[in-house]
Amino acid sequence: MRIIVDAMGSEIGTSVEVEGAIQAVKEYGHDIILVGDEAVIKRELHKRGTGVHGKISVIHAPERIEMHEPAALSVRRKRKSSIVVGLEILKRNEADGFVSAGNTGAVVCAATLSLRMLPGIERPGIAIAIPTMTGVSVIIDVGANIDPKALHLFQYGVMADAYCRYILHKSNPKIGLLNVGEEESKGTEFIKEAHTLLSESKLNFIGNIEGRDIYVGTVDIVICDGFVGNVILKVSESVIDTLVKLIKKEIKTNPIAMIGALLITTSWKALKKKMDYAEYGGAPLLGIDGACIISHGSSSPKAIKNAIRVAAEFKEQDVNKHIIEELEIY
Amino acid sequence: MRIIVDAMGSEIGTSVEVEGAIQAVKEYGHDIILVGDEAVIKRELHKRGTGVHGKISVIHAPERIEMHEPAALSVRRKRKSSIVVGLEILKRNEADGFVSAGNTGAVVCAATLSLRMLPGIERPGIAIAIPTMTGVSVIIDVGANIDPKALHLFQYGVMADAYCRYILHKSNPKIGLLNVGEEESKGTEFIKEAHTLLSESKLNFIGNIEGRDIYVGTVDIVICDGFVGNVILKVSESVIDTLVKLIKKEIKTNPIAMIGALLITTSWKALKKKMDYAEYGGAPLLGIDGACIISHGSSSPKAIKNAIRVAAEFKEQDVNKHIIEELEIY
Repeated sequence: MRIIVDAMGSEIGTSVEVEGAIQAVKEYGHDIILVGDEAVIKRELHKRGTGVHGKISVIHAPERIEMHEPAALSVRRKRKSSIVVGLEILKRNEADGFVSAGNTGAVVCAATLSLRMLPGIERPGIAIAIPTMTGVSVIIDVGANIDPKALHLFQYGVMADAYCRYILHKSNPKIGLLNVGEEESKGTEFIKEAHTLLSESKLNFIGNIEGRDIYVGTVDIVICDGFVGNVILKVSESVIDTLVKLIKKEIKTNPIAMIGALLITTSWKALKKKMDYAEYGGAPLLGIDGACIISHGSSSPKAIKNAIRVAAEFKEQDVNKHIIEELEIY
Repeated sequence: MRIIVDAMGSEIGTSVEVEGAIQAVKEYGHDIILVGDEAVIKRELHKRGTGVHGKISVIHAPERIEMHEPAALSVRRKRKSSIVVGLEILKRNEADGFVSAGNTGAVVCAATLSLRMLPGIERPGIAIAIPTMTGVSVIIDVGANIDPKALHLFQYGVMADAYCRYILHKSNPKIGLLNVGEEESKGTEFIKEAHTLLSESKLNFIGNIEGRDIYVGTVDIVICDGFVGNVILKVSESVIDTLVKLIKKEIKTNPIAMIGALLITTSWKALKKKMDYAEYGGAPLLGIDGACIISHGSSSPKAIKNAIRVAAEFKEQDVNKHIIEELEIY
C-alpha cells in the first residue's frame, strides 16, 4: 500500500505529518508519499533520521491552501498546493489513498473535481466515527455538503453502511435520521422526504432519532446534513472542553477536591483515550472515486498515523466497490 | 402578578407543577392559576396543605396534550386541554403570564393562534439561556420554527436583544450567527441572507460564530434556525450525560479513583448547580403577544418556580413593548 499524505495540512505544520508518516511506516509497513514543501519535509525527516527513508518519498508542492481560504477559488488558483498535487497523484493511480488534515472544503472540492464521484452518487459526504456509550457510531455528513437534497441523505445512508460493514466491521448497521422528534410527522419537508427514501430502501433504517440519541449509541449511523453535522461536532468538542475547564476551576478552590482529582487521574486518562478522536483516525470522504481521508486540523502524529491506516484499509477492503454494489441493491 | 401554570405539562406530572407553584408563592408572592385536572391538582395541593391556598386557584381542564402528539392537530382537537385553556385565560387578560412544561410544539401553536404575534414579528422563537465559560448566553431559536426564513433570524436577533437587556441585564448584548465557519462567504444562501440582514441592522452583530464558540461564551446571543437549535440543546445534554456515565464506569474499576471521586463531590455539585438549566427557569417564547414561558419536559419543581419568576419579570419589564420599539430602531 502506498498512501499520499498532505504534509502541509495540519495547523501545527509539517512536523506532525512527517512524524505520523514515520509511525505508519514502522507500524503498518506502508509506503508514504509526503507532498508539500520539499525542503521543509526533508528537514523534518532528517531531524528524525529514522532509517525508514526508503519507504517515504517526497513530492514537491510549494503552495499551501490556508484554513480560511474559500475552497473552490483556492483549488482553482493554487494548482501547486499540496492538496491539489497530492490528489493528482491519486488520480494518476500512482498511490492507493490520500490523507489531509488541511482545509476540508478545499479537499472536498479538489477531490470531487479531480477524482470525480462514484457512478450513481450525486454528492460526497464526510463520515466521522465518534465514541458513544456502547462503542463507536458514524455521523455523516459533517460538512462536505451543507445544503444537500433528500436523495443525498439517502445516499449517505448507503455509503456509510458500506463503510460500517467493511471498515468498522458492523454486520448490519442500524441507521437513524437526525430530526427534532421521533415521530414520522416531525421535521422539515426536506427531512420528511429523506425519511421516505430511507424507509422505502432496504437499508436497516430505524427511523428518526434526536440529538440526545447520538452519544447513547442508539444507532450505528446518524444521517444529517453537513451544516447540522458540522455544528454537532464542534458543539460536542466544546461542551466537553468547557465542562473540563469549569470542573478544574471548581476543584482549584478546594484542597480536598485537588487530592481527589489526583486520585482519579488514571481513570480520566483511560476515558480520554477511549474518547480520543485520534484513535479513530480521520474521516473518509465518501462518494469520491478514491480513498480520501480527512483529518482534524489539530491532528496529532497519532491521528495522522491512524488516518493512513484507514486510507489503506479503505482501499484494501474496496469500500467503493461495495458502495456501488449497495447502491444497486438498496 | 398572576401567573397561569399548565399543571399537566411535565413528564412526571401534576405534582411537579403544584410543588413549583407553592414554592413560587412562598418565594415571590405571586398569585398562581393552576390549569389541569381539578381533582388531581386539588389532591396534590391537599397533600402539601401549605397554607398558600389563598394565592393559588384552580381552573379545570380535563384534557392533556401528550408529548408525542402532533402540535397543530392536538391544539385544534383538544380545546379543553390545559395548554389551550391556560392560554385562553392569558388571552382574556385575566393573568400576566403562562408557564408550561408540556408539548413545546403545541404551546407554540396554541400561543400563536390565540395570543397572535407582536406587530411586525413574523414568527415566534424560543430563547433559552445556557451556562457558558463566562456566564450566561442565549440561543434562539431552539425549536419554535424549524424552517425559518432569513428575516425570521434577523427578528430573533431583535427579540433576543430585548430579552437580554431587560431580563438578563446585559447592556449591549453581542450577537453571533451560527455558521460552519467565521468567514462571511460561508454557509447556505439562507444563512448568508440572514448575515446580510443582521450586518445592515443596528444590532451589536459581530458576525458568524461556530459551534465551538457557543459554550466559550464568545457572544451573548446565538442565532440559529429551530432545527439546529433543537439539535444543539439535545446533543449538549447528551454529551455531558454520556461523559459523566463513562467516567463513573471508569472510576468503578479503580478503588483509588473511587476515593478520589468522593473527595471531589463538593466541587462537582457546585459545578452542577452552576450548569443547572433549572436555575435559569424556562425559555420565553418570543414574538408572541403575551408572556409565555416554556419549560423542559423533565422540569423539577425548582425549574417551574423559576419559570414562574421569569414569566412575571417578562411582564413587569414589559419585554414585548421593548421588542416592538427595537424592531423600529434596528
